[in-house]
Formats: sequence, C-alpha cells, structure tokens
Amino acid sequence: MATISSSFITYSSPKLYSSCSSPSKPRFTCSASNNDRMAFIDFPYVSTSHKHLMLDLVSTVQNRLNSFLNPCTLPPDVESYQNETGTAHAALHLQSGVQSSPIDFVLGSWLHCKLPSGGALNITSLSAYLNSSTDAPNFLVELIQSSPTSMVLILDLPPRVDLVLDPEYLKTFYEDTQLDKHRQYLDQLSEVKPYFSSSLYIRSVVSPTAILVRIETEGLEEMIKTHISPIAKEVLKTWLDVCAFGDRVVGESERDYLKKRDEMSKSKTIEIDLGSNLPRLFGQETANRVLEALREVF
Amino acid sequence: MATISSSFITYSSPKLYSSCSSPSKPRFTCSASNNDRMAFIDFPYVSTSHKHLMLDLVSTVQNRLNSFLNPCTLPPDVESYQNETGTAHAALHLQSGVQSSPIDFVLGSWLHCKLPSGGALNITSLSAYLNSSTDAPNFLVELIQSSPTSMVLILDLPPRVDLVLDPEYLKTFYEDTQLDKHRQYLDQLSEVKPYFSSSLYIRSVVSPTAILVRIETEGLEEMIKTHISPIAKEVLKTWLDVCAFGDRVVGESERDYLKKRDEMSKSKTIEIDLGSNLPRLFGQETANRVLEALREVF
Repeated sequence: MATISSSFITYSSPKLYSSCSSPSKPRFTCSASNNDRMAFIDFPYVSTSHKHLMLDLVSTVQNRLNSFLNPCTLPPDVESYQNETGTAHAALHLQSGVQSSPIDFVLGSWLHCKLPSGGALNITSLSAYLNSSTDAPNFLVELIQSSPTSMVLILDLPPRVDLVLDPEYLKTFYEDTQLDKHRQYLDQLSEVKPYFSSSLYIRSVVSPTAILVRIETEGLEEMIKTHISPIAKEVLKTWLDVCAFGDRVVGESERDYLKKRDEMSKSKTIEIDLGSNLPRLFGQETANRVLEALREVF
Repeated sequence: MATISSSFITYSSPKLYSSCSSPSKPRFTCSASNNDRMAFIDFPYVSTSHKHLMLDLVSTVQNRLNSFLNPCTLPPDVESYQNETGTAHAALHLQSGVQSSPIDFVLGSWLHCKLPSGGALNITSLSAYLNSSTDAPNFLVELIQSSPTSMVLILDLPPRVDLVLDPEYLKTFYEDTQLDKHRQYLDQLSEVKPYFSSSLYIRSVVSPTAILVRIETEGLEEMIKTHISPIAKEVLKTWLDVCAFGDRVVGESERDYLKKRDEMSKSKTIEIDLGSNLPRLFGQETANRVLEALREVF
C-alpha cells in the first residue's frame, strides 16, 4: 500500500506524515473531532501508552513555552486531511514563536495509514525549532508504529552547528547533559536494536547521542510505559531547560550561518520526508496544499 | 592492565596506539625487526587474516600514492616503542605528502598490549588525510581485536565539510559511491553488531555510511577473510579513485575553512586517543616523545 514519510525520518517501506490544531485554549486542542477533521491532539489511532506519551510531551511543551507561541494558523484542510478512499488520515499542528522568543516554531503531527496486511502504520511526532537568536539544538521525537509489536523511536536534540568545529558546543549540549546515558540504557534492552534511516541526510542531521532504535516486542505497551516514556520526558526536559531556556549569545555573523544551515536542514527534511510520499498517499492536490502551508513556515 | 587508544576510536576499556617504518623500499618496510624495533609492516602479533588484510591495504596505498609520498622521517624510537616491562609494544609509520600532491599524510600504526586475562589487545590502523587543495573525505580503517573471537572494525571516509550544509557533497562522496551498501551487508550478519565509540567527538567526525561494528564469532579468521577484507579493499578503492584522485576545485575562502576544520579534527583526535592513554601505557617520557612527533605533522 501507500508509503508515507514522517517529519524527520525516511522509513524504508511505509511512511507517513501528519499534525494539527486550532487556536483555541489549550492551543493544541482542535474543536473538530470527526473522521474528516480529527485533530492533532486526538491521536485517534494509536495505543494507550503511545497516546499518553505524546499527550504528556505536547502538554509539557505547551505549558513551558506557552507565552512564546502564536496560535496555530494552518488552514483546517491542512490541520487535518485524508485521502479519497479514507485509508490514510493525517493531522498537523504548527505554532510559530512570538517575535521576542527563541522559538522558530513547534510542529506536531500524526499519520495513520491502513496497510495491505490488514494492519496499520501510525506515526506521531513532535519537533521544536529554535530561531537564530540562539544556536542551541532543536528537539525531535517521533514514534513510528507499523504493528502492535514493532516500533521505531527517534528521539534527539539535533545540533545546529558543525560539531567537528565546535567541541565546546558538543560538551555543553551533549556531554554535560549526559544525554548518551539514555541511548546506552535502551541499548542494553534485548528488544531494542539500533535503527538506521535510509536517508543519509537524516543520519547527518542527528546528534551523536541521538536515539534511533527499532523495538520489537509482544509487550510494546509496557515497553513504552516503562522505558520509552521516562526517557522521552527526560530528554524534552533537558531541551527545555538547557536549549529553549538556556542563555546563548550569538553574534551577527553567526546568525547568518545559523539561518543558512537551518534553512538547508529544513528544506532538505521536507524534500526527503514529504516530496514524494505525500502525493502518493494523499494525491497531488492535497500534497500541494500541505507542502505549501509548511513551506511558508519552514 | 594498561589501556590504549587507537588513532581514531576511544575503546571503552583497553585501548592502544601504534605504527612505523623506515624510508627504504618499499617504504613501509622497516629494517629492524626485533622486539625492541618491530616495524609497522611486520604486524607481528595479529592473526593471519588480520595481517593479510592490513598488508593488502598498506601495499595498495603505497602503490597508488607512491609518487605523492615523502619517506617516513619519524625517529626510530617513535617508529617503534614499548613500555619498560615489555607488555606493550607499538609501531608507527607516517609519510607526509609531497608539495604538489593532494595528500597531507598517511599514518599507519599497530599496538599490542598484554591483558591481565592472559590474552592481548591488538589494534592496527591505517589512515590517510588529504590537504586543503581538495575537500574530499579522508580514509580510515582500524581493527581492534581484544580476543581471538572479538573484534571492532572502524571503516570510513570521514567527511571534511558540514554535511548538513552541503547535500551535494553527501551525494558525490556517499550516495553516488554507494558506500552504505557495505554497512548494510555487514548489518545482516548475525555476528555483527553496531558499535558506538565512547567519544561523542569521534561519533561526530565519522560519515553517515561509517562502518562501526563489533564482531563476535568463533570463526573470526574466516569472517575477516570472507567478509571484512573485500569490503575494506572496496572502500579503500573508492577513496583512492574518488577522493585521492578525484577532481575537486576548492576556492581560497574554502581552504581557510578546510584548514581550520582539519586542524580541529586532528588535534581533538590526538587528544582523545592518546592524551591520557599513551602515558598510562608507555610512561610519560615515551608518550611525550611520540605525541611530539605526531603533533609536528598533525
């Protein structure tokens, strides 16, 4: 069946995209909640643990960054869309940062796609991009579930500078924060294996402490609850404390570099994730609509 | 027992360093060959397959780059050295590139270190660094054998630019060359597992197609002969054809950037690999002598 790509990884066979919401309070809540207009915050297709984790992360971001974020202004048919046959649904939620904030934008998404096997692919993601007032890393979490017993987890603070040239940056954001301990912890679980994105560009964008793993277990619900959730929450907390609310002084010349690098990274991510997959999944018209809305912010 | 670090990775517990040769013909051959002055090319402590592979790679580099390389001018007590108790031996071989060549230098090494368990740690490595007349990737291979049944393999063309900013570079050197197929091939073997360097800096330096694997098998000799050797030779061939002999035009402003990045990468690599390990293994005096000789070229 159709193949979808998430906002950050290229998933070898089925891929997906999604996200949404309306500018009400809480901002991530959408008013509509039927099959045609299922909101980002509804996470209607995923398992309980998966949903609880995403809701927790979304509400934490919402609470901590509240004063930094503009309302979501995506058109309703970009906040939520589906294909003609109703086998693929997606939701998007996008909030830009207010002028004085360090936030570029926060993007949430989910995608649901029926598989020929009778199962379904479900991808949920939440990412936060900082603007050029700071060079601190971005945040990304993505859960890609292709069966009740199999999941790919992407959890990272992607760096915004060339780490080879900047060992101090590496120390500040990756060594001093002890981010690698989470990757090491998961690495010791027999159900968890390293995952390699099929996109070399995506592999280049992530940090050296990135958690990119495939989890195969009959007890996936318990695994998410016991192991994945605490780690994802901890990594988000690190990002909020050290990156979003950290004090980084960025000079004018560095800002130009940051803007250039951020733009390249975002445009390549869109191209890799959505360029070919969105039309295949949702048809060219819907794909154009969604891509156009995203490009306005990216 | 002592811990040694190789020229490129930080090996979690025992680590090592090494390499050598005299400016005779063939250039990688050393005249002396006793315990005190065992030459780089002798590879005296490793298994037959391991030795054959390294000899093959060294002679390929030697043959293809012959006219590009100056003789090795390391002092004899840096070309080969050992600790006071004779439990750790190492050899180094270093040849700088001639003025008109794209070669900065070629560095070969081995290290042997007796382990408290009665076994030994053996590390062999070969790396080639290009100068700022080109921005093409460097070459690195390293075999770290801590027992007759266990080996870490590092095989990569480390990039010399920020890949996030330069998708064309990624395409030229990593996608078009299909380097990832080698990593994928090894990934399918049950004896092979991904390996993560304990140094985040080293993880940042390698490419997205880097082969960083741990191999655990009773049939390590056969594994090296059948699977590792063909891949290592193929990756070296790619490096020679596309990088060392490729045509890259580098502008003056890019050269400054390259020099800065190369210097940072090399000095950090020395610091991480050798800074603390060499004194511990060989004593401060020998460590200073070796580090000083390397810093002259690095």
